[in-house]
Amino acid sequence: MAAAEPKPPTGAAAARRLAQSCWSAFWDYETPKVIVVKNRRLGIVYRAVQLLILLYFVWYVFIVQKSYQDSETGPESSVITKVKGITLSEHKVWDVEEYVKPPEGGSVFSIITRIEVTPFQTLGTCAESMRVSNATCDSDEDCVAGQLDMLGNGLRTGRCVPYYHGSSKTCEVSGWCPVEDGASVSQFLGTMAPNFTILIKNSIHYPKFHFSKGNIENRKGGYLKHCTFHKVSDLYCPIFKLGYIVEQAGENFTELAHTGGVIGVIINWDCDLDLSASECNPKYSFRRLDPKHIPASSGYNFRFAKYYKINGSITRTLIKAYGIRIDVIVHGQAGKFSLIPTIINLATALTSIGVGSFLCDWILLTFMNKNKVYSHKKFDKMVDAPEQSAGPGLCASEPSQQDCVLTDARGLAQL
Amino acid sequence: MAAAEPKPPTGAAAARRLAQSCWSAFWDYETPKVIVVKNRRLGIVYRAVQLLILLYFVWYVFIVQKSYQDSETGPESSVITKVKGITLSEHKVWDVEEYVKPPEGGSVFSIITRIEVTPFQTLGTCAESMRVSNATCDSDEDCVAGQLDMLGNGLRTGRCVPYYHGSSKTCEVSGWCPVEDGASVSQFLGTMAPNFTILIKNSIHYPKFHFSKGNIENRKGGYLKHCTFHKVSDLYCPIFKLGYIVEQAGENFTELAHTGGVIGVIINWDCDLDLSASECNPKYSFRRLDPKHIPASSGYNFRFAKYYKINGSITRTLIKAYGIRIDVIVHGQAGKFSLIPTIINLATALTSIGVGSFLCDWILLTFMNKNKVYSHKKFDKMVDAPEQSAGPGLCASEPSQQDCVLTDARGLAQL
Amino acid sequence: MAAAEPKPPTGAAAARRLAQSCWSAFWDYETPKVIVVKNRRLGIVYRAVQLLILLYFVWYVFIVQKSYQDSETGPESSVITKVKGITLSEHKVWDVEEYVKPPEGGSVFSIITRIEVTPFQTLGTCAESMRVSNATCDSDEDCVAGQLDMLGNGLRTGRCVPYYHGSSKTCEVSGWCPVEDGASVSQFLGTMAPNFTILIKNSIHYPKFHFSKGNIENRKGGYLKHCTFHKVSDLYCPIFKLGYIVEQAGENFTELAHTGGVIGVIINWDCDLDLSASECNPKYSFRRLDPKHIPASSGYNFRFAKYYKINGSITRTLIKAYGIRIDVIVHGQAGKFSLIPTIINLATALTSIGVGSFLCDWILLTFMNKNKVYSHKKFDKMVDAPEQSAGPGLCASEPSQQDCVLTDARGLAQL
Repeated sequence: MAAAEPKPPTGAAAARRLAQSCWSAFWDYETPKVIVVKNRRLGIVYRAVQLLILLYFVWYVFIVQKSYQDSETGPESSVITKVKGITLSEHKVWDVEEYVKPPEGGSVFSIITRIEVTPFQTLGTCAESMRVSNATCDSDEDCVAGQLDMLGNGLRTGRCVPYYHGSSKTCEVSGWCPVEDGASVSQFLGTMAPNFTILIKNSIHYPKFHFSKGNIENRKGGYLKHCTFHKVSDLYCPIFKLGYIVEQAGENFTELAHTGGVIGVIINWDCDLDLSASECNPKYSFRRLDPKHIPASSGYNFRFAKYYKINGSITRTLIKAYGIRIDVIVHGQAGKFSLIPTIINLATALTSIGVGSFLCDWILLTFMNKNKVYSHKKFDKMVDAPEQSAGPGLCASEPSQQDCVLTDARGLAQL
Repeated sequence: MAAAEPKPPTGAAAARRLAQSCWSAFWDYETPKVIVVKNRRLGIVYRAVQLLILLYFVWYVFIVQKSYQDSETGPESSVITKVKGITLSEHKVWDVEEYVKPPEGGSVFSIITRIEVTPFQTLGTCAESMRVSNATCDSDEDCVAGQLDMLGNGLRTGRCVPYYHGSSKTCEVSGWCPVEDGASVSQFLGTMAPNFTILIKNSIHYPKFHFSKGNIENRKGGYLKHCTFHKVSDLYCPIFKLGYIVEQAGENFTELAHTGGVIGVIINWDCDLDLSASECNPKYSFRRLDPKHIPASSGYNFRFAKYYKINGSITRTLIKAYGIRIDVIVHGQAGKFSLIPTIINLATALTSIGVGSFLCDWILLTFMNKNKVYSHKKFDKMVDAPEQSAGPGLCASEPSQQDCVLTDARGLAQL
Repeated sequence: MAAAEPKPPTGAAAARRLAQSCWSAFWDYETPKVIVVKNRRLGIVYRAVQLLILLYFVWYVFIVQKSYQDSETGPESSVITKVKGITLSEHKVWDVEEYVKPPEGGSVFSIITRIEVTPFQTLGTCAESMRVSNATCDSDEDCVAGQLDMLGNGLRTGRCVPYYHGSSKTCEVSGWCPVEDGASVSQFLGTMAPNFTILIKNSIHYPKFHFSKGNIENRKGGYLKHCTFHKVSDLYCPIFKLGYIVEQAGENFTELAHTGGVIGVIINWDCDLDLSASECNPKYSFRRLDPKHIPASSGYNFRFAKYYKINGSITRTLIKAYGIRIDVIVHGQAGKFSLIPTIINLATALTSIGVGSFLCDWILLTFMNKNKVYSHKKFDKMVDAPEQSAGPGLCASEPSQQDCVLTDARGLAQL
């Protein structure tokens, strides 16, 4: 700093001068010296690489991927459903109250399509089901009293009794009798089920962007009373026929109605909130959700019962219900312009554009250097900023030089 | 590489020398040459731009947006609810078991506020509802036997029978009789409903940060038995009056109790986990979720029935329940310091600070250059590192020069 | 730009020349001049710092944190559950239909382990529970007719009547009688409950990556009929014993069965989709979700009733059920290679590697400069590119100089 002085300064004075010098240097502006290589081929390579990188960023990163947006996944969602329709089994008419479980109209509900009814069950003793392991017996010795099979129907009494039908015998159990396998009757109520209509009201909210929307449009003239969903013409009429849902999920209705199954109705709200709210529309897709390719766990069924009291004793009707469970799954991602990702991606773009110069430096070194770089002929277009000039446009000592002026302009042009 | 040698070397020797040279060059340290422009105005502009960018990053990116944090949205959440209270209709007292469906205390439940009861329904034949299209008739010819209207109540028998009240006639149907529209009686049980209390227990877990918290505080003296939620004084007493929830959602209770509706109780757990766990508090908000502005789909109701067996035949009481469904929706985002986003944002900040030099280079080129740059007067403070010096502090050939020493200090000062 | 010309050009000509000059300059390639400091120590420091930063990025950012991946949290998920098993209370056998609520096999269900039954409730008048505040009385004056206590059991009639047992008296209420506290009988049905098996079918879908998977494997020979979950050997047999779930959650079964509680079965699908689908496996964890450390709100119970009609009047059996509620919570994050995060992290890495040169510049300035930088001895290995040379390999004016050639090679080597 003060090295130019002939005599060494005292400590205090030196420190003061150092501080002054630092302060002064802080307000200097520095810019790197550059060499301008006036080779058109190299320049084209350089600009081409920059252009490619720029295009990638503008097109893919900014336009396709919308990386300038802040995003939010998983909107707050509420689903209200309502099924309508009636159907017939051999004996009776079934209405919504009977075939939709649970009745509250939430996002997951089952439409019962087939039942196996075991009526008049009471607490008592009867023959165990033959499907239970070790249930068949020849005599009372085969049955251990007090044994409780987890997959059975009751506590064994120790007796061997005749089965419900056929000539075989099984161990007697104490529990709800008769057991399901011995006395159940199957009823199919899926005949009219493809025509059931399901109204799915869904409203979503993206809290980060304070954006809410629903999947129902307010149209006049009882529109909602007569419309059916169509993904182009009636996107905002979320009334689906059950048959349509099953068909869209790629399933056979009759088969599904017999074995039961779970169908997902997936509502996707992918929204670009930089556009108007009317551009944020739901997309519906339908997919079977239970593992149908795995025989052991395929299908869907559950058991419920109705309890009656007759003459003081309790009787129940046990119902094994096979049905189509509908899971309404709401998913979505909203994006909106935000400074931070924009700046991060811009900074990345700028850094990446620098890759062009890495490449050109390498070309300069590898190809141009090797082929007799030292002859002037090849590089006559490469003109360096003359060393006497102080940098771009600045000719510190000899401003009258022609070279200097020429180089200055070039030296600065690409800043 | 070996171009300085007078005779061309053999291939092997050249390769060896090249490798040596490369290896040696690998351990060199290179730093760009810079020009120091000792112009105070330009320096101020330069530093000011850098300061602005720095402030933006420190204040907005790091303090406001907390971009140094890794974040996780959508915590694992569990909700347990319990409703308490009794209410009266004209005829009877209703307790929780009767008006809350389903009873299990999950995150979605309905509080029934009005019912339309159709008692003594049995499977039989009766007049179809007049609301069903084409149900009115004059004679049996108007009714097609075997017809099943999806929105009707049963299978048409082909007869035309007198309606329940009035003088009109409708087609007879076989199904649950009498039909709802003909025989239902309305009961309002929402009178005391605003005073029902709802306890909402919620526990969340952010798996990425191994952080769990609940919305109930462990206070002594039976605090939870007597407290009511207040967003400041009793934040950790999640006991809400139903009237409070409806009011906070901006709805009129009486109206809502008549038509039914869905209210969302949104619990938001936005947590800065760099702070102590006690700073991570739930925020409650309340919002109506069903589309109340769309008359056709407004409100909320569902049907359920109670089945009785009288003298061997089954009778049911069908109940159309209007109610307030409460959806407890848990949402949240947790953030915690993490190296990667911090480094990405720091790198972006550093890259962005470079924008200052772009601006200054442009000023240098555009304004300073134009106004007679080549006269020495204006730029007498711009001193370039003399070309004889080898860079910062390094005077390769003539170290005794005054200029050299002076420049060295400056040249390095801004590194 | 044309400042070197002796005569000032006309405006048009100047503009044309400027445009030409700009266009020409656009195709120039520029590269910064660098100083090569041939100091081995500094070079080692420089490369070591670069290596450390590189290692950090390669190891931590890319390998550990997989920052080259795009990620998606919160897959679309569907859960189907099925409980099997029978249990005994003192008097009777209980099957799945009776102890699992709700029966539909969704992601949240309760297994009832203890009940308090209040049979034969009818609408009428009886003594209020002693637990209700102000319910005890000495005479009719203590009871206000028409009063409705929100936490009580009915509307007060104004009479003071003897309690169900003991000698005290409480106010009479009109409601479901007798009240629960006066007439309920407890039954424990959790004896066999630890042996109940719970099948949890879960299928997930990551829409961004079009990836689906389930937690059940398709094995032959009735594998699913006999297997039990084991986190290593039977990961794809999602059949859990209730006792195992409770034990894994760190709870005491008997205690939990008495007070009730909520256990979360958390299924985590953290998947690296760059690997094969078979590497994407579920991880199960178990956690108690209700706040067990807070006595006032610990445990889990709910009430439901069965309604009977006897001789035209309605009777109900009210059941307060304590049970183990299972919440199946599905969580997950999938990652797959994606260009944008890779490029952002690479750009950050490149920017960060530049930190090495900051450090070295500072070393150069601080240490080397101070210790007599200006003597040639110490820096004899520091050779600058001679200023006459036009840059890497380019000797603009005096190509015959030895120094020039030597420096060129070095100057480019580190590009």
